[in-house]
Amino acid sequence: MSTNRLDQQIQFILEIDKLKSILRRTSLINEARRENSAEHSWHIALMAVLLVEHANETLNLTHVVKMLLIHDIVEIDAGDTFAYAGVNKADQQAKETIAAERIFGLLPSDQAVELRALWEEFDAMSTPEAKFANAVDRLMPILHNYQNQGGTWREHGVTLAKVEQRVSPIGDGSAELGQLTQAILADAIAQGFIHR
Amino acid sequence: MSTNRLDQQIQFILEIDKLKSILRRTSLINEARRENSAEHSWHIALMAVLLVEHANETLNLTHVVKMLLIHDIVEIDAGDTFAYAGVNKADQQAKETIAAERIFGLLPSDQAVELRALWEEFDAMSTPEAKFANAVDRLMPILHNYQNQGGTWREHGVTLAKVEQRVSPIGDGSAELGQLTQAILADAIAQGFIHR
Repeated sequence: MSTNRLDQQIQFILEIDKLKSILRRTSLINEARRENSAEHSWHIALMAVLLVEHANETLNLTHVVKMLLIHDIVEIDAGDTFAYAGVNKADQQAKETIAAERIFGLLPSDQAVELRALWEEFDAMSTPEAKFANAVDRLMPILHNYQNQGGTWREHGVTLAKVEQRVSPIGDGSAELGQLTQAILADAIAQGFIHR
Repeated sequence: MSTNRLDQQIQFILEIDKLKSILRRTSLINEARRENSAEHSWHIALMAVLLVEHANETLNLTHVVKMLLIHDIVEIDAGDTFAYAGVNKADQQAKETIAAERIFGLLPSDQAVELRALWEEFDAMSTPEAKFANAVDRLMPILHNYQNQGGTWREHGVTLAKVEQRVSPIGDGSAELGQLTQAILADAIAQGFIHR
């Protein structure tokens, strides 16, 4: 194949099939297996579509959805980082930057720049769109773990303090989702799914 | 939980986790396992974002992406239909209609109506958005099967005539993607991945 624009786009589309083999720590709600990052990205993109009315600010929904569809792609090279693992953040960031260079670099340069910028925006959590995208990304595992009687919290002995830290940005994207999170955590503690 | 609006939305979001367990006939490009409908939906939603410039008409991208994110949800109850299987179309349609009633019906009524309409629009293939959404949905398995030296065409002895029929709407969404499809099929025949 020649290296025209459409061929570059198709090469990227084929490459990202690998995200379907990147396993997260969370399990499906039926607990049959661990979830992968591609299906997780689908789930939170649709979650954002449905919950956008609860965002604190008026948002560009297309921008949020694009961000969620691409936010985990660097994991193809850098792997998934468990939210409660004690990884070296600088090391992980360096790996992810190299991954972003290579993978987004498969695209025509204007799209490589656009996707790279979306990925950085998601991480920086400063725009209204990034705040809301992070809110749904952080709420989803709370729902999964709650449905699975503690899920990864139980398996890995995650403390309430760590969960609280992880969910603290949810309210910045959506006060309503922040309140829902607090209600779920209170119930999870009452039921013994998380320990103080 | 009470049955307020947010709770209904969350119940729907939990329910659709089941789409991750609905297997399609196509395999991942690494052939490790069959692909599921949730990760497939992620893949074609992002494909639409990247390829929208090749659509025949100016499109509302958000509308296309929403359609692709929800287009397979009825499979949770109705199962995936292999594009080349000899299923009774009326039976399958009846099953899917009941599935749509139940699953979209979990949402607040305005969103239930919106998602149901998107699903019907996708199936009718008459709007520019639905034509383009169907084009990417039909192109993706061509890419997978070509990468997998024939994939499901080989496994199920699918003839060129049937593949041609399946891909014929691609050009209605995007002439450029239609031409790409023809080039891939010509090469697939040359390499013996499909038989005439």
